[in-house]
Amino acid sequence: MGSAADAERLVREFCDVFDGRDAEKLRKYFTDDVVYHNIPLEPSVGIEATIAFIDGFFAMCESMTIDTTHLAVSGDVVLTERIDTFHIGETVAPLAVMGTFEIRDGKISAWRDYFDLGQITAMLTGVV
Amino acid sequence: MGSAADAERLVREFCDVFDGRDAEKLRKYFTDDVVYHNIPLEPSVGIEATIAFIDGFFAMCESMTIDTTHLAVSGDVVLTERIDTFHIGETVAPLAVMGTFEIRDGKISAWRDYFDLGQITAMLTGVV
Repeated sequence: MGSAADAERLVREFCDVFDGRDAEKLRKYFTDDVVYHNIPLEPSVGIEATIAFIDGFFAMCESMTIDTTHLAVSGDVVLTERIDTFHIGETVAPLAVMGTFEIRDGKISAWRDYFDLGQITAMLTGVV
Repeated sequence: MGSAADAERLVREFCDVFDGRDAEKLRKYFTDDVVYHNIPLEPSVGIEATIAFIDGFFAMCESMTIDTTHLAVSGDVVLTERIDTFHIGETVAPLAVMGTFEIRDGKISAWRDYFDLGQITAMLTGVV
């Protein structure tokens, strides 16, 4: 188990790389058995399903930014409160999100994001 | 500013009292200017609006339990991952939630809960 500072650094770096919209660059941050669960949707189980999901997501939006407003660490778990902003054409969709990252051996073994699906759907209706 | 342990204790105690379904017993945990925001809904601004909202919510369900699966503190902010389970008649609705609590002078000055409104609506459809 690494330190809380290591866990925080890992998640902040991951979020920065995520903004780059290259799913393959995220591969090194995940354990092989990672479970990525956008809570309103079905979970992606395993690293291949997770990369494929993120790749599909990146194909949908032209750019995005993750703004972490709060982050706190307890043991191997990092909890975040964020504004994830999607840019698609003229549309800017800032989504209020909280997310949990579980860390094992310096990689993310679970990622769960909590948000209102209706909210992001309404913001993007007619766009995607 | 209190310690991280104080902030954790306050939020855990608040969640325990919340399970008791008596909105007035929650009053002492809030600052007068508290903002309680269930992210998919409009925020309740101020202690009276917050107590009234919670009172209406308690009137709707027969019992509830808050199971805090993860909690982490950073400064005056407490981040939680929880399963909030509502019992209404024969229906048991376990809702996956994350919530942020901002603490000021030993009281909650902001509470933001993140969840999928469609998920809880689907679980309770035909019940409330």
